[in-house]
Amino acid sequence: MSDEISQHIDQIIRQEEGTEPDHVLDGLDDLEPDQIALLLESLPLDAREHAWSQVPLSLHTDVLVAMRAEPRESLLRLFDSGALDQLTESLDAESLIELVDSLPDEVVDIALARMDQRQRTYFEQSAGYEDNQVGRYVDHDLLILPQNSRVRDAARLLRRVVPEYTTHLWLTNRAGQLAGAVAITSLFTAREHQPLSELLEPDLEPLQAGLTLKDATERFELAAVPALPVVTEDGILLGRMTQRLAMEVLHESYEAQLMATAGLDEEEDLFAPVLRSSKRRATWLGINLLTAFLASWAIGLFEGTLQEVVALAVLMPVVASMGGIAGSQTLTLIIRGLALGQITTANVMPLLKKELSVGGLNGVLWAVVIGAVASLWFNSAAIGLVIGTAIVINIAAAALSGVLIPVLLERLKIDPALSGSVILTTVTVVVGFVAFLGLGTLVLL
Amino acid sequence: MSDEISQHIDQIIRQEEGTEPDHVLDGLDDLEPDQIALLLESLPLDAREHAWSQVPLSLHTDVLVAMRAEPRESLLRLFDSGALDQLTESLDAESLIELVDSLPDEVVDIALARMDQRQRTYFEQSAGYEDNQVGRYVDHDLLILPQNSRVRDAARLLRRVVPEYTTHLWLTNRAGQLAGAVAITSLFTAREHQPLSELLEPDLEPLQAGLTLKDATERFELAAVPALPVVTEDGILLGRMTQRLAMEVLHESYEAQLMATAGLDEEEDLFAPVLRSSKRRATWLGINLLTAFLASWAIGLFEGTLQEVVALAVLMPVVASMGGIAGSQTLTLIIRGLALGQITTANVMPLLKKELSVGGLNGVLWAVVIGAVASLWFNSAAIGLVIGTAIVINIAAAALSGVLIPVLLERLKIDPALSGSVILTTVTVVVGFVAFLGLGTLVLL
Repeated sequence: MSDEISQHIDQIIRQEEGTEPDHVLDGLDDLEPDQIALLLESLPLDAREHAWSQVPLSLHTDVLVAMRAEPRESLLRLFDSGALDQLTESLDAESLIELVDSLPDEVVDIALARMDQRQRTYFEQSAGYEDNQVGRYVDHDLLILPQNSRVRDAARLLRRVVPEYTTHLWLTNRAGQLAGAVAITSLFTAREHQPLSELLEPDLEPLQAGLTLKDATERFELAAVPALPVVTEDGILLGRMTQRLAMEVLHESYEAQLMATAGLDEEEDLFAPVLRSSKRRATWLGINLLTAFLASWAIGLFEGTLQEVVALAVLMPVVASMGGIAGSQTLTLIIRGLALGQITTANVMPLLKKELSVGGLNGVLWAVVIGAVASLWFNSAAIGLVIGTAIVINIAAAALSGVLIPVLLERLKIDPALSGSVILTTVTVVVGFVAFLGLGTLVLL
Repeated sequence: MSDEISQHIDQIIRQEEGTEPDHVLDGLDDLEPDQIALLLESLPLDAREHAWSQVPLSLHTDVLVAMRAEPRESLLRLFDSGALDQLTESLDAESLIELVDSLPDEVVDIALARMDQRQRTYFEQSAGYEDNQVGRYVDHDLLILPQNSRVRDAARLLRRVVPEYTTHLWLTNRAGQLAGAVAITSLFTAREHQPLSELLEPDLEPLQAGLTLKDATERFELAAVPALPVVTEDGILLGRMTQRLAMEVLHESYEAQLMATAGLDEEEDLFAPVLRSSKRRATWLGINLLTAFLASWAIGLFEGTLQEVVALAVLMPVVASMGGIAGSQTLTLIIRGLALGQITTANVMPLLKKELSVGGLNGVLWAVVIGAVASLWFNSAAIGLVIGTAIVINIAAAALSGVLIPVLLERLKIDPALSGSVILTTVTVVVGFVAFLGLGTLVLL
């Protein structure tokens, strides 16, 4: 399946380069909107523009909704007013809410003006919730019946158009509050005149619309349900959240975490314009430059020593690297633990103890190895002693920071995946250099 | 929900520490097996053992299945032969296949001997597939009918016990081959005597049992289906794969990727015994030590220069850091692209061009800033020139390696998330030091 998309990507790029004749793309209609979105995101800007012109009009909205914000906006910038106008005609509440941040205000207004009253109400309900709340993304494909309905009413409803993969009917009272759910399969054992309220499924607790997507997704990971109902604080049934959305959330949150480790954003365009991309990355480089200058400052404290014993300058990377690697192992384990909700108040101490023991053991082991190599290399037992001791100190500091930095950041509501490794590097580099060069000054001069 | 688990974790640890009275845990029965598994994984070994003793016997199997391999094995090691014997009684084919690698062979044999013939056949079918193949994890909760059945046969079947969230009936021919699927909702519009073969759902393509879990999960991300049928090469219906399993796979694959960046395994126990944990991490430290020694060797080539111009030693971390950070940004973007299937043969060149442009721009920008700072700090325009030029060279090399290293590793079937950053660091450190110290030797001596 991915291979199919790869072939499309290669074909389009070769056409742009002129190494293949420019005929209409084969089989773009066979792809799902999500696949076309991925295809477009994988293309350089000019090829992307070209490929977009071949996407069937009927899929425009779904493809734009499926794209990451940045590449999507690279396409929307190409839309003239006619194309934008055309787009507004096909938007329902659910797609408009996905695109609202990428569209100019006046286009949103036009789209709203063109919707029927029901869609407009849906939109306003959704827009009342934040980006990370369930209420913003409810889907309205549900079969709803008044709570006093009977089995034959349900059967009649099911003879009309049924949304795909519907497993339940939802019962509401006159105020629109959720009164229960009935599994469609349970209808087969029921009598025609039986009230649906006798068939209620007890365990299907609804999601609160104000719940975060992350917490809602945890519910889906625990229960094998295709969809859960979403209700307001007052119990009004707004719609449902599907397991498919939960999969999307899971995917995006992990992607965001991966990208954050390098100071990047999940919405980042693979082929972002050079200037924009450079600007964004410059910030991250700048932050890290401060760390590097701090390291230089630490080294600068020992200029005199370095002039006398140049071997210390040669061995500096070894001290910094061992601390950095040991620290990042602890950090990664803790970041995963925090993401899973494994790290609490009471288990930080036992964790710290464990990580310090692991660090201590590895510190001593590698101190011996590195000390021996350094002694032989520079023909001086004292150098071996100095670097060995520095390694033990730095790996211990790394274990300590690897546990405490992410835990503290989490308490301060700062994403540890984003800032954890910069701070950790600063600590291990400065501690490492000061320990190593400081000991060197004491022992070797 | 996570909070609830946090409270349990804290309560258990405080009991272990003796700061809270040791009464039976409240509400452990209210938790799902997945939650109990996470709870156990979050506890130090002695507290884990204590908490395990309070898990209701009826949940033992499900909790063990839900746990990561390493913490699970920490518990299984505590089982005496009586407990193992008891465990074998509750194992069906699906749970045994999950636990088979954690159990001694003789326990597996006993479990198999105790199963009925049907479960044994299921187990053997599953065991014929690899760890990463769909066939290993099929679930047998489906409603199957002969392909010549009629609507009333389906209705009769549905009046018996129906697996939760069943949306389809599966039709097979006499050879057991999948002949089609019928949506349960479509039965409401059908006549009692109508053959089910007239109601077939056309789009539900089955999964091949030999497909990788990753590819199967992509199918679930595209289609909002609660489950897909799984068939052998010959079209025999083995069972189904659920969307819930797809969510698990997604979760685990991202977790594995995160852990791999630090040379760790997804199954790693947060509270692994110190000795085991140290051993495993030592390997990763050792690999990275080679990188660090390579850097030292590169510096060692310029010992004479360093002795003359100690400022170079002071500034070395800045050159290494800027290259490393710029490179890891490119690397992360490419690793995400590879995971999504965005990187193909034809778009590597345009990507390289873009990343080199971004790198060039940022290289020049930061070269000017760093060059100015260095000139002022050491009161020498020549030092500023040397470090500025080295920064440009190193950031360009980082962009080049950030694209090419993961792409090459992927072609060689080596996980770029695991090895990419070690190799990248080696390149940027060595290139950075050689460029910086080499230029220094030429210009400053």
